[in-house]
Amino acid sequence: MEKGCKFGSHRVLEPSGALPQSALKLDNTPKIYSNEILIDVGILNISATAFTRIEKLTGGDLKGIAEEVIKIVNERGKFQCPDTGSGGMLIGNVDKIGLDLNGRAGVKIGDKIATMVSLSLTPLFIEKVLEVNVDTDQLRVKGKAVLFESGIYAAIPEDLPESLSVAVMDVAGAPAWTAKYVKAGDIVVVIGAGKAGLLCLHEAHKRAGITGKVIAIESQAAQCELVERLQLADIVIQADAAQPVSVMQKLLQATGGRLADFIVNTVNVPNTEMASILACRDHGTLLFFSMSTNFAKAALGCEGVGKVLTLLIGTGYTEGHADITFQILRENSGLRQYFHGLYK
Amino acid sequence: MEKGCKFGSHRVLEPSGALPQSALKLDNTPKIYSNEILIDVGILNISATAFTRIEKLTGGDLKGIAEEVIKIVNERGKFQCPDTGSGGMLIGNVDKIGLDLNGRAGVKIGDKIATMVSLSLTPLFIEKVLEVNVDTDQLRVKGKAVLFESGIYAAIPEDLPESLSVAVMDVAGAPAWTAKYVKAGDIVVVIGAGKAGLLCLHEAHKRAGITGKVIAIESQAAQCELVERLQLADIVIQADAAQPVSVMQKLLQATGGRLADFIVNTVNVPNTEMASILACRDHGTLLFFSMSTNFAKAALGCEGVGKVLTLLIGTGYTEGHADITFQILRENSGLRQYFHGLYK
Ligand SMILES: NC(=O)c1ccc[n+]([C@@H]2O[C@H](COP(=O)([O-])OP(=O)(O)OC[C@H]3O[C@@H](n4cnc5c(N)ncnc54)[C@H](OP(=O)(O)O)[C@@H]3O)[C@@H](O)[C@H]2O)c1
Ligand SMILES: NC(=O)c1ccc[n+]([C@@H]2O[C@H](COP(=O)([O-])OP(=O)(O)OC[C@H]3O[C@@H](n4cnc5c(N)ncnc54)[C@H](OP(=O)(O)O)[C@@H]3O)[C@@H](O)[C@H]2O)c1
Repeated sequence: MEKGCKFGSHRVLEPSGALPQSALKLDNTPKIYSNEILIDVGILNISATAFTRIEKLTGGDLKGIAEEVIKIVNERGKFQCPDTGSGGMLIGNVDKIGLDLNGRAGVKIGDKIATMVSLSLTPLFIEKVLEVNVDTDQLRVKGKAVLFESGIYAAIPEDLPESLSVAVMDVAGAPAWTAKYVKAGDIVVVIGAGKAGLLCLHEAHKRAGITGKVIAIESQAAQCELVERLQLADIVIQADAAQPVSVMQKLLQATGGRLADFIVNTVNVPNTEMASILACRDHGTLLFFSMSTNFAKAALGCEGVGKVLTLLIGTGYTEGHADITFQILRENSGLRQYFHGLYK
Repeated sequence: MEKGCKFGSHRVLEPSGALPQSALKLDNTPKIYSNEILIDVGILNISATAFTRIEKLTGGDLKGIAEEVIKIVNERGKFQCPDTGSGGMLIGNVDKIGLDLNGRAGVKIGDKIATMVSLSLTPLFIEKVLEVNVDTDQLRVKGKAVLFESGIYAAIPEDLPESLSVAVMDVAGAPAWTAKYVKAGDIVVVIGAGKAGLLCLHEAHKRAGITGKVIAIESQAAQCELVERLQLADIVIQADAAQPVSVMQKLLQATGGRLADFIVNTVNVPNTEMASILACRDHGTLLFFSMSTNFAKAALGCEGVGKVLTLLIGTGYTEGHADITFQILRENSGLRQYFHGLYK
């Protein structure tokens, strides 16, 4: 067994020197290198943008959708939307583990896993499409996929519903980073109480503990009520995070002038950088998990108000992120039931 | 004396609830609140984009330029380019210090200071334009400006040429953050060896010390030679930071496979996020100072290669940033002479 590049560049056919994500074509031969994992693919979870494009292209015809996905995979050796570059993720069973990963893969042959790196960088070989589901943007397939040494995946727990586990995995980075940054006694502010925000609130509460304080800032009344009903925060502030001065004033009041030690921004709209910055105490830490974050607005905004903060770009992955997130659902039956209702 | 908002929102005339930077009109009355500083303005350093716009508008006529600047300031109570929102900075002497800032302003009446917050958020009152200099984008004026409690400024040192001090202040955040993050024994990579990068190299060398290693990655042969001539790095790698795989391979070789503990990215071009990520060891720290950084590319790129890094948004300010930067010029006569040649 030959050893490949940790990041999969040995599978890039063109252009040379590229990484798998930006590559036009990957070698999808289902025979692994010594630091790869081979997966028996069960389900392809196509990204919403990529699926919508194919539905439009084919007029929603199921056979047409299947053919278009196969065509893309044959051309590129991976599934990647030709327009937007997005992919999706997959669920399958571990088929083979390369010798170099023995003992440190954390899974064994036969385990059911979900990949947490995009399909847009995953070598994929489709034998047959078995079913197309336009409600869930999923394809049931017979095929093989290759995970590189750097590829992230998580075993799907047996004690939680699969649909629930897969749904929360998408945002698992947010509660996991929260777990790593929040210390006992911290005042924590979570901006946005959607999927990621709710998980962060539970985790922040656990870490800040009895001497800390957890504050939720959310614009929708319904989500605010949910947070209160599930007792996920000490204080719930209904406010628009695009209004920095008003958010700061409410928070100054709620914290007796101290502001937050740690903030995680999980909203799904732009222009909330400034409120996040003003909500944070000097030398506090602010994690931008929201993909609507604008780098220049955050950097210049912070300088403009003369604050010294640790401004973090929140990534989707840190060690144990899926385990931390599954554990939240085990610990918090109210949250588990709420998510189960959403993603069954 | 009444006390104003730390961030100056008490001077916002419209729209209400806004911060000074996004405001359409500020109250520029040259009478200070108890937590403000009044400045006798000497020079307005207009941002390049704003100055170019006015030059075009007026056909480069000096009187026309002066009138257009006065018009904007009368309309807005501050100088801010109506198209791009950019401003510039100013140099002047401290005229009055509000009672609440007594003893903690770090300057005294009469001191010459440069503001390090943008003109686009600074209340400005112009009595007269004395001179327009189209080579330096500067206006010599008679007027007053107001600095808020959160406003950043630095005293201009008497032992360094003023033009030199003002030029390096713009990027002072980069070496100052470097000073705060680099520890003895670290392998430090500085990407881009321009104004900010050269200052970071000196500071990194000092902090990493004899047990550390400083590596410069720069695309231009001339800048690489300069770094070598000034002995600012242990290793100089001439490479295009938009080529991640090739940068990583060169760095693996240069570090015996260890990669960097701390990286600061100071390039002036886009698409260098991935090379920066691949150059950093797992659990290392990567500071993006370059304003060409794209948030999503950094977040998704890091997740795509399964790395766990501390990804920092580099701001232009941290405590003592100007002092740290002036000190570099005092310590390093080669660098001082080089910059002096550029900015005299
Ligand atoms: N960094 C990464 O690697 C990564 C990975 C995955 C996801 N993400 C990002 O994480 C973010 C959150 O994902 P999610 O699944 O949790 O989204 P979500 O369920 O839609 O949650 C976002 C929440 O923010 C609230 N909100 C919207 N506008 C607001 C405002 N102006 N002020 C206060 N709250 C506001 C939303 O309220 P309503 O919608 O009810 O109005 C919603 O409750 C997204 O931006 C996503 O792109 C990042
Ligand atoms: N975060 C903040 O608050 C803040 C504040 C001020 C400035 N900045 C930013 O800091 C950055 C640096 O400013 P500066 O004044 O130091 O700029 P600069 O003097 O132009 O330096 C940039 C250096 O990067 C080099 N470079 C360009 N493309 C490269 C590539 N592909 N690979 C490797 N090196 C490359 C440039 O080489 P050549 O140009 O010789 O090709 C130059 O030497 C800018 O992006 C600026 O916007 C940020």
